[in-house]
Amino acid sequence: MREAFHDQLDAIFDDLAGMCGQVETAVREASRALMEADPEVAEQVISADAQIDLAREQIEENAFSLLSLQQPVAGDLRTVVAALRMVSELERMGDLSVHVAKIARLRVPDLAVPEEIRAIFVRMAEVAEGMVGRLRTVIAERDAGKARVVGAMDEEMDHLRRQSFAQVLGGNWNHSVEAAVDVALLGRYYERIADHAESVANRVIYVVTGENPALEG
Amino acid sequence: MREAFHDQLDAIFDDLAGMCGQVETAVREASRALMEADPEVAEQVISADAQIDLAREQIEENAFSLLSLQQPVAGDLRTVVAALRMVSELERMGDLSVHVAKIARLRVPDLAVPEEIRAIFVRMAEVAEGMVGRLRTVIAERDAGKARVVGAMDEEMDHLRRQSFAQVLGGNWNHSVEAAVDVALLGRYYERIADHAESVANRVIYVVTGENPALEG
Repeated sequence: MREAFHDQLDAIFDDLAGMCGQVETAVREASRALMEADPEVAEQVISADAQIDLAREQIEENAFSLLSLQQPVAGDLRTVVAALRMVSELERMGDLSVHVAKIARLRVPDLAVPEEIRAIFVRMAEVAEGMVGRLRTVIAERDAGKARVVGAMDEEMDHLRRQSFAQVLGGNWNHSVEAAVDVALLGRYYERIADHAESVANRVIYVVTGENPALEG
Repeated sequence: MREAFHDQLDAIFDDLAGMCGQVETAVREASRALMEADPEVAEQVISADAQIDLAREQIEENAFSLLSLQQPVAGDLRTVVAALRMVSELERMGDLSVHVAKIARLRVPDLAVPEEIRAIFVRMAEVAEGMVGRLRTVIAERDAGKARVVGAMDEEMDHLRRQSFAQVLGGNWNHSVEAAVDVALLGRYYERIADHAESVANRVIYVVTGENPALEG
């Protein structure tokens, strides 16, 4: 019984890592659509989101089945519930990638991000992709040490978002109001992707160590 | 055993309804801070969020304890897991109210929302507060009919957000870039509060009827 439980739990974490890989693709391709004003790449991100939603449903069903059939308690129970929360957050990161892709698509053939702050957004995209890429390993290996690295990367994202705000609101903004609104929302979307990545990483730390780093809802 | 389970489950839903009442206050007062540029009201919303976080922790502990001790299966199990998700979403609605309050505080003594679109935001605030207020009854009474009313209210919020965008991007915007960014983010925060309210309402429908209206993460 215990062995069956742990096999099924491992399978759920493998599926979560696989879903995280799909989210990594979504984040990377949404950023590519944004930086290259590529409508086809944007469309791919938008349509591929249905597969992320499907992965979520399957993982949720497996977690419910595990709870029902194996009736875990204490730490095992908390691990399965943590997996259910991780799956929600990963799905949300996919949705946020779709939001980025939709802004990219809306501005084609123009670039949504003006040249002067392009470097900030290139870096935001790198940080987001780097966090989600590492997160996949964190989940697959349930590695608390690597999870802390992901959490620490969120600080750079917050810093980048403040930088982008400073550019828009610094008084030297000579682009449209529309571009300012795009930049504000894009910054918010990348920040939320990073927040969720940190939160998933914290859940892995919790599952492995029992410590509870400040978890977000 | 079954009776004990249902008593404890009822207690969890009562606590969720109470937490929803705290969120209702946060949404209402954040909107008041925004519309009146009142820094003290904004501060109250920001500091009261700790109590919402505390309510979340307590409800989560009770739900874990219920899962561990009573080992529910099938529909009962799904109801407890739904409660765990509702508590996360309610906490997030509190965070979003804090975001609204912080923008209000940042612009004091000015109003963050320019006069021409004030009416749109007054209505957004009414819709958000109305949704969260009804949601409290929906949770307390586990009333699927009223839950559908909450879900339907989300459409007006989406419409209002599009209206506010049209005002900012319509070419007649004669306010600062800063104001445009504030309006874009505020619109996003109210939209997310409404999305979460709809999602919590959908979870109640699921718990009561077994139907699964399109759930968000």
